[in-house]
Amino acid sequence: MANITKFDVHNHRNLTMLVDFYELTMGNAYLNSNVANKIAYFDMFFRKVPDGGGYCIMAGVDQLIQYLSSLEFTKEDISYLKSKNLFSDDFLKYLEDFKFCCDVWAVPEGNPVFPNEPLVTVKGPIIQSQFIETMILLTINHQTLIATKSNRICRAAGDRPVMEFGSRRAQGYDGAIYGARASVIGGCSSTACTIADEIFDIPAAGTMAHSWVQLFETEYDSFKAWAETYPENCVLLVDTYNVIKSGIPNAIKVFDEILKPKGLKPSAIRIDSGDITYLTKLCRKMLDDAGYEDCGIIISNSLDEYIISDVLSQGAKIDSFGVGERLITAKSEPVFGGVYKLCAIEEDNGSITPKIKISENEEKITNPGFKKIYRVFDKKTHTAIVDLITLNDEVIDETKPLEIFNPVYTWKKKKIKDYYVKDLMVKIFDKGEAIYQSPPVLEIKEYAKKETSKLWPEVLRFENPHTYYVDLSTKLWGVKQNLLHKYSESYKDNE
Amino acid sequence: MANITKFDVHNHRNLTMLVDFYELTMGNAYLNSNVANKIAYFDMFFRKVPDGGGYCIMAGVDQLIQYLSSLEFTKEDISYLKSKNLFSDDFLKYLEDFKFCCDVWAVPEGNPVFPNEPLVTVKGPIIQSQFIETMILLTINHQTLIATKSNRICRAAGDRPVMEFGSRRAQGYDGAIYGARASVIGGCSSTACTIADEIFDIPAAGTMAHSWVQLFETEYDSFKAWAETYPENCVLLVDTYNVIKSGIPNAIKVFDEILKPKGLKPSAIRIDSGDITYLTKLCRKMLDDAGYEDCGIIISNSLDEYIISDVLSQGAKIDSFGVGERLITAKSEPVFGGVYKLCAIEEDNGSITPKIKISENEEKITNPGFKKIYRVFDKKTHTAIVDLITLNDEVIDETKPLEIFNPVYTWKKKKIKDYYVKDLMVKIFDKGEAIYQSPPVLEIKEYAKKETSKLWPEVLRFENPHTYYVDLSTKLWGVKQNLLHKYSESYKDNE
Repeated sequence: MANITKFDVHNHRNLTMLVDFYELTMGNAYLNSNVANKIAYFDMFFRKVPDGGGYCIMAGVDQLIQYLSSLEFTKEDISYLKSKNLFSDDFLKYLEDFKFCCDVWAVPEGNPVFPNEPLVTVKGPIIQSQFIETMILLTINHQTLIATKSNRICRAAGDRPVMEFGSRRAQGYDGAIYGARASVIGGCSSTACTIADEIFDIPAAGTMAHSWVQLFETEYDSFKAWAETYPENCVLLVDTYNVIKSGIPNAIKVFDEILKPKGLKPSAIRIDSGDITYLTKLCRKMLDDAGYEDCGIIISNSLDEYIISDVLSQGAKIDSFGVGERLITAKSEPVFGGVYKLCAIEEDNGSITPKIKISENEEKITNPGFKKIYRVFDKKTHTAIVDLITLNDEVIDETKPLEIFNPVYTWKKKKIKDYYVKDLMVKIFDKGEAIYQSPPVLEIKEYAKKETSKLWPEVLRFENPHTYYVDLSTKLWGVKQNLLHKYSESYKDNE
Repeated sequence: MANITKFDVHNHRNLTMLVDFYELTMGNAYLNSNVANKIAYFDMFFRKVPDGGGYCIMAGVDQLIQYLSSLEFTKEDISYLKSKNLFSDDFLKYLEDFKFCCDVWAVPEGNPVFPNEPLVTVKGPIIQSQFIETMILLTINHQTLIATKSNRICRAAGDRPVMEFGSRRAQGYDGAIYGARASVIGGCSSTACTIADEIFDIPAAGTMAHSWVQLFETEYDSFKAWAETYPENCVLLVDTYNVIKSGIPNAIKVFDEILKPKGLKPSAIRIDSGDITYLTKLCRKMLDDAGYEDCGIIISNSLDEYIISDVLSQGAKIDSFGVGERLITAKSEPVFGGVYKLCAIEEDNGSITPKIKISENEEKITNPGFKKIYRVFDKKTHTAIVDLITLNDEVIDETKPLEIFNPVYTWKKKKIKDYYVKDLMVKIFDKGEAIYQSPPVLEIKEYAKKETSKLWPEVLRFENPHTYYVDLSTKLWGVKQNLLHKYSESYKDNE
């Protein structure tokens, strides 16, 4: 049944027209200028890890596949576009008959990814490969942002489960639904977002709000009614009035009166306000003294990785966390700056001409050409050493030492022995047909955990992490240098 | 046809299950505890204006109406919930037969709104009025956040049009679609989000990306091809290589060669990088010198109200702005902290018992009771003087002076004469039936502009605005004081 709902939510929704208007004006102009079928290569990549972190967690590929599989312009879309008096009949006809035919590669979800390496590469007629820019960016930017934030928060929480709880503060309905999905990929154990459980089979959880407590004449009455309904899974929210003077004493009374006679133990108490460290230490003692050593303490209230690290370092007694607005919006840095850039063009004779985007800001200069990424691992420790971006036809001979070098300070070299490589990107569309299926979300979560554990601890640090090497092969470096020098020549001509 | 698409996007999408799981566990427990049909009153309100501003712009009511009108649990939803082994058969049966029956009031979209006043009030059986919490908050929080940010950015831009451009960096698909809607309510002139135009009839706009320029052998070739396709509406992106040395000279050449012979004028050039003030002054001069005084200059690149104010104060020559990630995510403060609190309960005899939520943080103490808001205007200037929150049955006699007072420092009083009042909230649902229809988005935008102009300039300031008065009627103030003292008594008993 989860599949039927999945169908309802996703496939009844045609997002073809969720596109920046300029993709359409360009599409029309490509056709008008007789370049629409020129084969173009685009890379989606990002330049900076949010929050000064060392890596991001790739997410969103499943939704990207669904979008690309369901591209279709309805009659209503065509008449809407016609009403703009801007598009040629040829272009509208092209859209009416639109059939997606691109090849697409992507880094599978859950992989740690780094600045400047392609996360998605598209090859196809520019009228199509250009068109899908908006949704590729929107999908991958959003979910990678949230998975990355979640990963930080969950690492701060250590082995304690983190529950995603932010739907009410999300930026729109999909912000909540796909945000919950990405949170679990990043490491959350559960979500409060019910529909996300229904669609993605990620465990939903939740207990009571303050309004439950307020509805009753007394806090004790409200706890009693709750324990009678949920004796086997009793979690009480103890901060509606006063945690220490009222909440915990009432909880203990109800545990004694309702649960104990049934031979049942309470699950947890939850605190949603106040001084976490102080309150949890006191609560722990009160619960222990009453014989409820197993009763967990759940904490929520505007948490993030910094607050979690801080209260844990102060010895707060916490068994699990509920994290809301600061996760679901990635509040500390709510924009993931992924970009989508033309990197090559196929000539009529089939050869590939690399393209570069120049910028006065050196960091914004793109890597040209049709590329792939090899992640290089140490053979003994399985630690990831470097990501090597190469031209797509390059093969690495693992039996020979691999020399890598800093692409700017090229005298900084390193020879790697006893390694193996993994081709990081997989082909997800072949001539417009989806050929890859994303694993279930909980499997992606485990995969993310495993792959993240292969990074050096120095890369995992929250503050000032070591910069993981993302280098270019000698061949690709040469291609880039040639283009830069060529640009520099033509630039001189301009002066 | 816009309506058909509207139907497709909205109504085919059942968001009933987009709900925090605890609304369901509470619903089940209300039923089990025989309180499910107790009539409860909830208020949705916020406590703080983002970015230190003086007011927010209400938005999202239309989507809230659509959600509440389409509440329905499918068979798949019921079997999913059954599989949790947590809910009683009675509760599942209740959901299967669910028929929304609440009364709902809301402040219409486009109104300036202030902290601590109810934006939405719900009256109904607690099993229902509790359930809709998540979506009320999600919907109003998101759109009010973006409309408010947009309003700041558009005020900074003065009379210059601002185009919303952020889809690719939005947090999820709805973040883009409803974010575009809210941006226009806040003041944007157009959006790049095509589907938002199709659904909401808000003008979509857009021209070319850098990839258009890169595709061609030279920048000149690319401009020429563009001008040939769009001679009547020619906007050229001039910063792919070098704005001053290449972009503007090539643009002028193409204007001369392609447009001038046809008797046409260029629309604009666009700059997406570099030093805005410096470049626009130079560009303006170069365009003017070439006889293109009417050619506009459009600026984009990580803009917000602060950068816009700054470059304009430095004399940058700009005709319109494209604003992306910092608007669509409200980057500087991406969370709108609206909350939904129980404020009253109807007793079996029909009387209303006000409820209060106590907090050690005085600002978090709620306003109890079933309430309404009167906005008080000066009769001569039509300036908004104060919002007076009263109990719902209070009527203000406009022929008599109105005494208002600070609810904390009650000796701070003020007598208002020559005023008129406006009942700010409208009833949008009567016993579960929608009885209000939101105006078209462009009308809401005009309304927001008009209502905002009624605020004192001191309230409109970006930094350190005057705090607009939101006061309580004497009667409501008394109700609140009684509850606080009652709480204080019972709190003493605990010690």
